[in-house]
Amino acid sequence: MKIEAVDFFYVSMPEVTTDADGSQDALVVRVAAGGLTGWGECEASPLVSIAAFICPMSHGACRPVAASVLGQTVEQPADIARIAATIAYNSMDLLQAPHTWSGIEMALWDLLGKARGEPVWRLLGYPRAFNKTPYASQLFGNSPAETLAGGRSARAAGFRAVKFGWGPFGTGTLEADIEQLDAAREGLGPDGILLVDAGQIFGADLEAAAKRLPALERNRATWLEEPFAAGALSAYAGLGKRTKAFKTAGGEAAHNSDMAEHLIDYGQVGFIQIDCGRIGGIGPAKRVADYAVARGVTYVNHTFTSHLALAASLQPYAGLAEHRICEYPVQPRQLAVDLTQNHLVPDKSGELAISEAPGLGITVDEAALARYRVEVEIKVNGRVLFPAGRAG
Amino acid sequence: MKIEAVDFFYVSMPEVTTDADGSQDALVVRVAAGGLTGWGECEASPLVSIAAFICPMSHGACRPVAASVLGQTVEQPADIARIAATIAYNSMDLLQAPHTWSGIEMALWDLLGKARGEPVWRLLGYPRAFNKTPYASQLFGNSPAETLAGGRSARAAGFRAVKFGWGPFGTGTLEADIEQLDAAREGLGPDGILLVDAGQIFGADLEAAAKRLPALERNRATWLEEPFAAGALSAYAGLGKRTKAFKTAGGEAAHNSDMAEHLIDYGQVGFIQIDCGRIGGIGPAKRVADYAVARGVTYVNHTFTSHLALAASLQPYAGLAEHRICEYPVQPRQLAVDLTQNHLVPDKSGELAISEAPGLGITVDEAALARYRVEVEIKVNGRVLFPAGRAG
Repeated sequence: MKIEAVDFFYVSMPEVTTDADGSQDALVVRVAAGGLTGWGECEASPLVSIAAFICPMSHGACRPVAASVLGQTVEQPADIARIAATIAYNSMDLLQAPHTWSGIEMALWDLLGKARGEPVWRLLGYPRAFNKTPYASQLFGNSPAETLAGGRSARAAGFRAVKFGWGPFGTGTLEADIEQLDAAREGLGPDGILLVDAGQIFGADLEAAAKRLPALERNRATWLEEPFAAGALSAYAGLGKRTKAFKTAGGEAAHNSDMAEHLIDYGQVGFIQIDCGRIGGIGPAKRVADYAVARGVTYVNHTFTSHLALAASLQPYAGLAEHRICEYPVQPRQLAVDLTQNHLVPDKSGELAISEAPGLGITVDEAALARYRVEVEIKVNGRVLFPAGRAG
Repeated sequence: MKIEAVDFFYVSMPEVTTDADGSQDALVVRVAAGGLTGWGECEASPLVSIAAFICPMSHGACRPVAASVLGQTVEQPADIARIAATIAYNSMDLLQAPHTWSGIEMALWDLLGKARGEPVWRLLGYPRAFNKTPYASQLFGNSPAETLAGGRSARAAGFRAVKFGWGPFGTGTLEADIEQLDAAREGLGPDGILLVDAGQIFGADLEAAAKRLPALERNRATWLEEPFAAGALSAYAGLGKRTKAFKTAGGEAAHNSDMAEHLIDYGQVGFIQIDCGRIGGIGPAKRVADYAVARGVTYVNHTFTSHLALAASLQPYAGLAEHRICEYPVQPRQLAVDLTQNHLVPDKSGELAISEAPGLGITVDEAALARYRVEVEIKVNGRVLFPAGRAG
């Protein structure tokens, strides 16, 4: 099968706010090859990711992503890895390239799975897929009362695990954070699994993060996610040494598998969280899952957008029975709900089954793509580079 | 001084080839504040970097670079660091942001230096600037004979040090690489300083790189640059342990100071090479220089474009007398020569003096900007986002 077309669909809510909520827009990718189509999603700035696909070449190591993709042959998983390696080399100076490629890579797995009549996780070598325990991923409330209510409603909706993140956490006083953590625990009850996401708020300030340790321990957090900037590896390792009660988590910013491995090796995280829409797709995420297994680190997906992205994010660790917890966006904007015709819904016991359908098992709603569509036109020296094939 | 305008000039040679030659196009940045202008240059894909400046916000942690820059106050170096921190946080999910910001950051230092009547290196805290020993940076020839000729002509032009990189190196047989290294040494004579740049050709393959060690040692290379992908830290450390004759060098891909520090701490490089047009400008590069000094690692600039970029790249280590070697692009495309009215030229003894003029000490040739200009228009939902201020 030859890759004939790669089409990008930039969709957005009518209004985008400064909430740390990645479901407000999306960049959906459709790949056509051999009479089939595959779908993927970049977790990235849509406009900038489109530009990285079609930009003029700057030199041999700064080529547009399109140059390494269009016309390539895809018959087996090794072909996807081959294209990925070409991009890593020929676009090494194009910083945005991994974000652009991530959605295309997912779509290629979806397409290959459809061609073979197999779910992607089976193409990755897993003989079976295990259910996951979804956690409700939500923002800290603006007040402890809001956080408490958020925890209660997530439990009422059947979630055993809840993650609170961003919002006011780390931006005010220590006391305010303690109140938030106490409210979170109270909201989800004594037996709930509490996960906390600091959203990099402490930069590289180990001592500022360490001040929150007693309240995190007392409220029995399972992990503290992204206390620091993605590259602050020694701060990660330092904080990890200060507590035995829980582990640090991180990795969502990794835009290649090396970065995730550094967080494991040098940052000593206990949970490695991978966004397939950023790391370069499903292939490098599976590499990180293998690496984590070998080092006793737990793999977790990072997903804050549509169920297309969610389905893709489950594939790399679908076959790992012990790596059970999974991020499940519980308050997405309507856009992220509408993007797909089918959804991954937890069962009555709160467990999430991974689809056995070919490819990613998700049907994109093309009418929703049209409804939320953002029109982009990029012209260089009078020539329209995007959308492709339109007269200048 | 309030930042009133940030203007981008995408310039390009009429023809861009797949040569690993970054001087074929450029993204020059002009910042206006308080009646002054400052100039900088991104070492990055021009179109994608422009898109990262003006893209619509995706959410609170994926905002366009412009949102953190326009209207900000700049009176002192701490203001530049403050804006950098805002971008790192508010654009953390916008992968291209550091490349876009790099040129703006340089321009802010240039502007601040002009406002104070001081060279940038003095604003960085250096009491004086020391001459550097420029090395002629060139590509390996297509044949050993071409490489030999390139070495001879660089010596004839007065360069004591020559770096050969990319081209066929690592792409063919071991024997072919040995012939190239022998030719390089022969071309630059027994007393020349030989530097070798593998251009990441070995990926993470330690053994493939290690096969070249005897020829590198016999030809007395001072460093082997980028044998591996930028993130292959354990391969870097592994290769460094295999020889005492020379050290590894790397860092040009670093898009934040953390990445450079990881190469020092975990990759054990002996030379850290920073491109101010990628790492986020002069401020983070100075932080890396301080870090290198404290750890006995030698700082080197990475520059393959204009003398505006070259001048900026010398500031972070201008005051370090012992860190003497500097990259000097010796075969740039005409574009890179024409971009500036003045140039940094080695003296008769082959030494390069760092300018004492205010700011970066370089005057951009605005007529050349017009001559090489590439027109870009980016429209989103019918509104022209670039160039700014043009009707839709």
